[in-house]
Amino acid sequence: MVQAYILIQTEVGKSSNVAEVISGIPGVVQAEDVTGPYDVIVRAEAESVDDLGRLVVAQIQQVEGITRTLTCPVVHL
Amino acid sequence: MVQAYILIQTEVGKSSNVAEVISGIPGVVQAEDVTGPYDVIVRAEAESVDDLGRLVVAQIQQVEGITRTLTCPVVHL
Amino acid sequence: MVQAYILIQTEVGKSSNVAEVISGIPGVVQAEDVTGPYDVIVRAEAESVDDLGRLVVAQIQQVEGITRTLTCPVVHL
Amino acid sequence: MVQAYILIQTEVGKSSNVAEVISGIPGVVQAEDVTGPYDVIVRAEAESVDDLGRLVVAQIQQVEGITRTLTCPVVHL
Amino acid sequence: MVQAYILIQTEVGKSSNVAEVISGIPGVVQAEDVTGPYDVIVRAEAESVDDLGRLVVAQIQQVEGITRTLTCPVVHL
Amino acid sequence: MVQAYILIQTEVGKSSNVAEVISGIPGVVQAEDVTGPYDVIVRAEAESVDDLGRLVVAQIQQVEGITRTLTCPVVHL
Amino acid sequence: MVQAYILIQTEVGKSSNVAEVISGIPGVVQAEDVTGPYDVIVRAEAESVDDLGRLVVAQIQQVEGITRTLTCPVVHL
Amino acid sequence: MVQAYILIQTEVGKSSNVAEVISGIPGVVQAEDVTGPYDVIVRAEAESVDDLGRLVVAQIQQVEGITRTLTCPVVHL
Repeated sequence: MVQAYILIQTEVGKSSNVAEVISGIPGVVQAEDVTGPYDVIVRAEAESVDDLGRLVVAQIQQVEGITRTLTCPVVHL
Repeated sequence: MVQAYILIQTEVGKSSNVAEVISGIPGVVQAEDVTGPYDVIVRAEAESVDDLGRLVVAQIQQVEGITRTLTCPVVHL
Repeated sequence: MVQAYILIQTEVGKSSNVAEVISGIPGVVQAEDVTGPYDVIVRAEAESVDDLGRLVVAQIQQVEGITRTLTCPVVHL
Repeated sequence: MVQAYILIQTEVGKSSNVAEVISGIPGVVQAEDVTGPYDVIVRAEAESVDDLGRLVVAQIQQVEGITRTLTCPVVHL
Repeated sequence: MVQAYILIQTEVGKSSNVAEVISGIPGVVQAEDVTGPYDVIVRAEAESVDDLGRLVVAQIQQVEGITRTLTCPVVHL
Repeated sequence: MVQAYILIQTEVGKSSNVAEVISGIPGVVQAEDVTGPYDVIVRAEAESVDDLGRLVVAQIQQVEGITRTLTCPVVHL
Repeated sequence: MVQAYILIQTEVGKSSNVAEVISGIPGVVQAEDVTGPYDVIVRAEAESVDDLGRLVVAQIQQVEGITRTLTCPVVHL
Repeated sequence: MVQAYILIQTEVGKSSNVAEVISGIPGVVQAEDVTGPYDVIVRAEAESVDDLGRLVVAQIQQVEGITRTLTCPVVHL
């Protein structure tokens, strides 16, 4: 199992809606609005890095209003 | 009361108009054009972090010509 | 109550220890190692923005091996 | 007369002291602690761009604990 | 002969197609999807820095869905 | 007299044309294509910081294909 | 098996030595000096994301002269 | 012949001296102090990309007070 934080930038004025829509995507644990260089921070999990990549590209990035996503996989050192 | 600086990037050629429009938004103390990585720097204040977030998303980010805002809340340490 | 994500960069080779030490700080909900531009992502909460600022400066930034912290307060829009 | 915002990054744990010391430098109008990618935001003014550069290099950057300054001159378009 | 890595950002949801199309451009050795601040990393080679610049501008940047490219020429020190 | 470097990012595939058009703007000393995080680097001069700001906003940023400009005034310390 | 590119920043003047030392670490496929925002680009592989994280933290980041590493796992979409 | 701009960040308070020392290095055409995210901008030229890389690493980066250099080769498209 792979966990990750996904730091998201949205079009201006879209962050609230983006967070709400992402919250309903399977694999997404939490999606919250934040201030600062990112607009929404998501916690998600998937079976593998490739599955995580597919979750981001095929599901999360399809949400209207997202301009950039930055995936930060959690590592257990 | 929460104060914040909001560092704004605009579409090319729009900074002057953006600063002028933002100046008239309630809660905005000052809005000025600058050179460098940001185009406009705004000082604003609100009742709480959530109100500040709403001011940025619902009022400032609605101004036409803004591409990114970066909110930096003032902290009293 | 104010929640925030704190994105942390550490000196090379220090991320694992930084995450472990931060986990024990009161107010910190979770601290995990990640890969990408940040090394550790922390979730914390405090009574106010000022308290959050004090938690970051007086507690988290005192952990040896941290080079930069980026605080992203959660906003409820 | 040239006005500018100076966005400052400090060593971890030093922002509060940096803001306090900078507040006392002639030409500095205001210096405040913030959260986000910058730690202190300063407003300053000088006779010319060159004087502003000297104020930053010869006075502000001499304050112990500063790692980066980013000067954003105000422009009147 | 000049080698280079080209770090590419794409529109959301376009990285997979971008990598596939770039793979077929002469001078491109490899093009792979990655996670993090970049979406696709390409390795390419050309006769000179100017030829490399032309390969990037005239061939790679023409691929639909690319928003930024960052060329990092390999140097033999 | 104020001199400045202006670091420019363009839409993909537009850098060559942007550099050529900017070269013809009064106040621009040189405009060249580069590789790396910026696409075109310009050297310009104006009577004052405000004039420089106007040159950038009213002339350079009007050139089609520019997405960001970063003005770095030269300072004589 | 997980592949990744690791984008490395080094202390000034250290990139050549860093690339040479990293080349000898098991799991590293290639390590080259580049110009631009990064100084060395490494290609590495490991059994899992956690192993990749350990390779970076326990082996690569131990090389003297490295200031930042940015791991970009390859994803097969 | 390869030309390049080299964007330099220095330790706080060192930019003026860095620019002066770099001005005397063979291959350097001009070195000036600037304000903004960079502290010194250099124009240099060399026989090839590899020679340019060596000039930066072996000569420019040896100047005391430099923390980062970003080389942007000029390309003739």
